[in-house]
Amino acid sequence: MPDRPRLTPAIAELRRATRAALDGLSPDALVLVALSGGSDSLALAAALAFEAPRGGWRGGALIVDHGLQNGSADVAARAAQQATALGLAPVRVERVWVGGGHVGSGHGGSGHGGPEAAARLARYAALERAASDLEASVVLLAHTLDDQAETVLLGLARGSGAASLQGMPAERPMATGGSFRRPLLGVRRATTVQACADAGLEPWLDPHNADPGFTRVRVRQTVLPVLEAELGPGVAEALARTAEQLREDAAALDTFAAEVAEDLAEHSEAGLALPVDALAANPPALRQRIIRLVVSAEFGVALSRAQTLDVARLVTDWHGQTGLDLPGVRVVRRGGKLRFEARGADGTA
Amino acid sequence: MPDRPRLTPAIAELRRATRAALDGLSPDALVLVALSGGSDSLALAAALAFEAPRGGWRGGALIVDHGLQNGSADVAARAAQQATALGLAPVRVERVWVGGGHVGSGHGGSGHGGPEAAARLARYAALERAASDLEASVVLLAHTLDDQAETVLLGLARGSGAASLQGMPAERPMATGGSFRRPLLGVRRATTVQACADAGLEPWLDPHNADPGFTRVRVRQTVLPVLEAELGPGVAEALARTAEQLREDAAALDTFAAEVAEDLAEHSEAGLALPVDALAANPPALRQRIIRLVVSAEFGVALSRAQTLDVARLVTDWHGQTGLDLPGVRVVRRGGKLRFEARGADGTA
Repeated sequence: MPDRPRLTPAIAELRRATRAALDGLSPDALVLVALSGGSDSLALAAALAFEAPRGGWRGGALIVDHGLQNGSADVAARAAQQATALGLAPVRVERVWVGGGHVGSGHGGSGHGGPEAAARLARYAALERAASDLEASVVLLAHTLDDQAETVLLGLARGSGAASLQGMPAERPMATGGSFRRPLLGVRRATTVQACADAGLEPWLDPHNADPGFTRVRVRQTVLPVLEAELGPGVAEALARTAEQLREDAAALDTFAAEVAEDLAEHSEAGLALPVDALAANPPALRQRIIRLVVSAEFGVALSRAQTLDVARLVTDWHGQTGLDLPGVRVVRRGGKLRFEARGADGTA
Repeated sequence: MPDRPRLTPAIAELRRATRAALDGLSPDALVLVALSGGSDSLALAAALAFEAPRGGWRGGALIVDHGLQNGSADVAARAAQQATALGLAPVRVERVWVGGGHVGSGHGGSGHGGPEAAARLARYAALERAASDLEASVVLLAHTLDDQAETVLLGLARGSGAASLQGMPAERPMATGGSFRRPLLGVRRATTVQACADAGLEPWLDPHNADPGFTRVRVRQTVLPVLEAELGPGVAEALARTAEQLREDAAALDTFAAEVAEDLAEHSEAGLALPVDALAANPPALRQRIIRLVVSAEFGVALSRAQTLDVARLVTDWHGQTGLDLPGVRVVRRGGKLRFEARGADGTA
């Protein structure tokens, strides 16, 4: 690989995006890139290797080896070698054990449960652990605009509203301190492929990325191309923009719901109560969020939309119903209040 | 056509949906169905003809003839005949004149401008006029779940956030009193086709509905089927559900933004001012809505997202910028306030 790649448009775009994501970090902060060896993370690793010393930071790499595919140790070792050659340090390979054996795409694998989800959780946990060990400020994730668009489409297909459409955040705090950041949410996947080619870097081609047994792969290979062909180019960008705005909207409503819930909730030994009048005075979107929020906070139960609407009808369409039994919680309207009480799994209060 | 069609599942579903939409109307209210003669509106007309007398209301029909396709007068006359045969009265045909001649799909016709949009505006205006003339309480529009899903996909492709994704409302007030209602937003198009067949009603097949020059037709014929095939059945329902929730979210945020804007705005001869502190204290989704709202209300200017974010940066990322010139409005930060002033089209304040 050439020591000093030409500054091509693709390489410049990657560096600019990476620089923007690092803005404001304290001097000498350690920034780690989560590296799979694929074009997205390899291009990001190269950009980090370039930008970190110029910004006064240290740039390193974390490689997670799930041991779920044959030869995964070789893939990890090769990625580590590439990171080192780029000048990143430290470079660390984390081996994780995911219960359940091979990640197969299986029948209708949706990317939302089963081995895929387990592998994802294990990966993030390993990244957090390593970041904490190394006292890193930031772990960079290489999700691109295309990944974001795919996430929105997958969310749309589930139809669970704004929450499922808001895609991945540009920044998320880690439990152990520091944060995950995604500098490439505005960068097309093709640009990362080009940047690797321009820099003479050879990305690893994950066979999973071509397996149409994964819904996400079908979205990438079939759905997005059809949308672009029929609705015009720019659909991926439009989906990513939509995600950004819906994320803002959801954040605002969640903030208001938390404030109102905090004000309204009356806690007692039996559980918690909310005044019906105040719930009625709020718009439906807020009323429903308040209901979901208090039930989740108090009983650890995530209400579905249908269940939430059933509870809301005790406020807005009350004709003497005495109450509602939901999994883990009973809701009763009495004395101008909705009373939420824990309920045994066997249906007893 | 048989006088008393069998009560098939499709006919029952149409009637149930229609009944639900009429719930709460005063006795003897006049309900008009907007009838094109296509399967959606024909099935809805039949359901209205059945439900209206049973609910104590009068059911009639409005047929709008744009005169934009050859033979449109015949299509209108045939629809009127069908409505009368169903027992609807009054049945009225409104001829409207749409400037610009034929509605052709043309190159990349998006359904958002040009002759299609003009025809739509003319149609709604004619419906409102006729409803007002006849003192109707409600005009029923036959948009189905499929139409709603298509609207959401078209909105996604534009990428203008929640506003473009919320689809069509179930009810919308008419300027002349009364309201438009859409009883079939939860009913699949195929069900209306089946209901017509079950009732021996022959719908008109609009050639526009098969013209792939219209983006909406391509969404119907290609995009939605691909989504259903690749993401699983139920995508149309998921899109419609998403629209419903985003509509609620947008309504709540718009309400809050209007309240806060009302509280904060200080009007003067020069224009209007908003305190920077208060804007900064609000979450981005609300801050941006407040900015858009005051500019729209005061200057009749609809800011784009990019322009709105530019104004917001005067609050959140201020490093001494003196102000911002936008079409029709100048925004200046001075004395802890954002000051909005009218600006000539030639760039003069």
